[in-house]
Amino acid sequence: MKPRIPFLATATGAPRQAWFAALQSALPEVEICELQQLTAVEKQQCQVAIVTNPPLSELAQLPNLIWVHSVWAGVETLMHTVGDSPLKIVRLIDPMLAETMAEAVLAWTLYLHRDMPAYRQQQQRQIWQSKPYRRPHSKTVGILGLGQLGQAAAAALLAANFKLCGWSQQRKSIPGVQCFAGASELLPMLSQCDIVVCLLPLTIDTHGLLSTAQFNALPTGAQLINFGRGQIIDDDALRLALDQRKLQHAVLDVFATEPLPVDQWQWQHPNVTVLPHCAAPTDKTSASLIVAANIRHWLSTGVIEGNVNLVRGY
Amino acid sequence: MKPRIPFLATATGAPRQAWFAALQSALPEVEICELQQLTAVEKQQCQVAIVTNPPLSELAQLPNLIWVHSVWAGVETLMHTVGDSPLKIVRLIDPMLAETMAEAVLAWTLYLHRDMPAYRQQQQRQIWQSKPYRRPHSKTVGILGLGQLGQAAAAALLAANFKLCGWSQQRKSIPGVQCFAGASELLPMLSQCDIVVCLLPLTIDTHGLLSTAQFNALPTGAQLINFGRGQIIDDDALRLALDQRKLQHAVLDVFATEPLPVDQWQWQHPNVTVLPHCAAPTDKTSASLIVAANIRHWLSTGVIEGNVNLVRGY
Repeated sequence: MKPRIPFLATATGAPRQAWFAALQSALPEVEICELQQLTAVEKQQCQVAIVTNPPLSELAQLPNLIWVHSVWAGVETLMHTVGDSPLKIVRLIDPMLAETMAEAVLAWTLYLHRDMPAYRQQQQRQIWQSKPYRRPHSKTVGILGLGQLGQAAAAALLAANFKLCGWSQQRKSIPGVQCFAGASELLPMLSQCDIVVCLLPLTIDTHGLLSTAQFNALPTGAQLINFGRGQIIDDDALRLALDQRKLQHAVLDVFATEPLPVDQWQWQHPNVTVLPHCAAPTDKTSASLIVAANIRHWLSTGVIEGNVNLVRGY
Repeated sequence: MKPRIPFLATATGAPRQAWFAALQSALPEVEICELQQLTAVEKQQCQVAIVTNPPLSELAQLPNLIWVHSVWAGVETLMHTVGDSPLKIVRLIDPMLAETMAEAVLAWTLYLHRDMPAYRQQQQRQIWQSKPYRRPHSKTVGILGLGQLGQAAAAALLAANFKLCGWSQQRKSIPGVQCFAGASELLPMLSQCDIVVCLLPLTIDTHGLLSTAQFNALPTGAQLINFGRGQIIDDDALRLALDQRKLQHAVLDVFATEPLPVDQWQWQHPNVTVLPHCAAPTDKTSASLIVAANIRHWLSTGVIEGNVNLVRGY
């Protein structure tokens, strides 16, 4: 009989079934099962689980769990659930996710660069008027977060001829990107940006990072893309910056509460593009292959690859 | 006294002044002047003029004109004005124009690829729902027109990982692009396309080229971008294809009549993006330098570079 590994997923319906099928196909030597399919003995012996954002009540049924592998890249909710326990969390690091995110950054940067929101508004009012065109060589895009996703995004934007700067906690060195680091260099970087792209993870350091002082540091008429996490932005400060025309437009794919509640102002704001957390959807097949490789490595060697550093939070 | 070359422009106001300044700066050895500044003798002797779309009444004041240099790439209106006369027309061929057009093709292809029109409609109705994501490797973009603009666009789309096919009157060979040619291969090409990008010039052969049979050849749910000329599309057939959901969305930057009249259906159609002929604005500085080089070459050698082939029409 094959060993069983439970998948603790929040997804329901077809997406849940698709995840089970992809994981089972990637790990044929084990049986991927639901938590409730495990016997009492199996629950006692279970050392690894595959997860999205399971509630603590599910994790608590596996008292000898050593580690969990998330099929997602963002694990801040899972970390909060796990709290101080010694449980190790491994998050998804998928080159295909970086490729899709880089495409999304390029797509929505060009959306702002080529004034698509303004042309949409003109169409509604039947106005035929070209906006002044500035070549990308003369525009600076600033990337917040220079990890795997940020570096892939930078490469795509450099190929499109934008000037690039970037900011991260630890200083990076990336060809073609003017790199800033640490809290003291955030405002100086923002002051150069025509378009700011947030790809930061949510941590204690990034919670509320973009607020009034940061928006005020931007050149008037700058534009913002948030593909990181909603809580990185102070929503009241964002709304003020938009209403004062400090910020010309914001593309928001992530929000403090998702789905974005119907009474939230972002839905209706003329200078906000609301996206339903769709910038970089996880590819279930490639993600499952990566999860499988990490679990297989642990099964044969006992070594857990790439567990999240709880101090940094990502 | 410097020789004088008239600039016969349809532009008014600031754009007209900007053109005069750019041309004068690029050709300091001649005086760029208005038609009415020429004396009667100068009009008799004038052999070259710089133009946009001058009326026949202006051209007729220069009876010994040998050639005109357009500051635009599209010269179908000028060719119609000139008619059967032996006057030679040189159109603008500007690498910077190709770069800007390639950027526009990439920008609006990504706009369609990433379902931005659908997300916009969802935002208006406060719907939080991700569209299924298909990687660009699995989508085919078909380019109509494989000249300088089409080849630059193909390079940008290949870099973004799309599958590419292309169609032209004469067969081309372009690495990474499945090339089709001639009337008989248009429908077979269209049958493969998820997104069609029209970059064709307007000629006798391309007038009304995209009509019912061509739209019917597309896979259901295909999308269209027209950055060529409005008259290439049969507007009634386009409207039908959109209303029948054969075509999912159309991005239209060019129209049979520009500005697009307020009573035209395209303004209001939920699945049409109307742009005010803004995809690839001419850069006055770089265009003027190219015009200057061609005129200077003619002044010193008597050879006219790159005149339009009236049989092909571009």
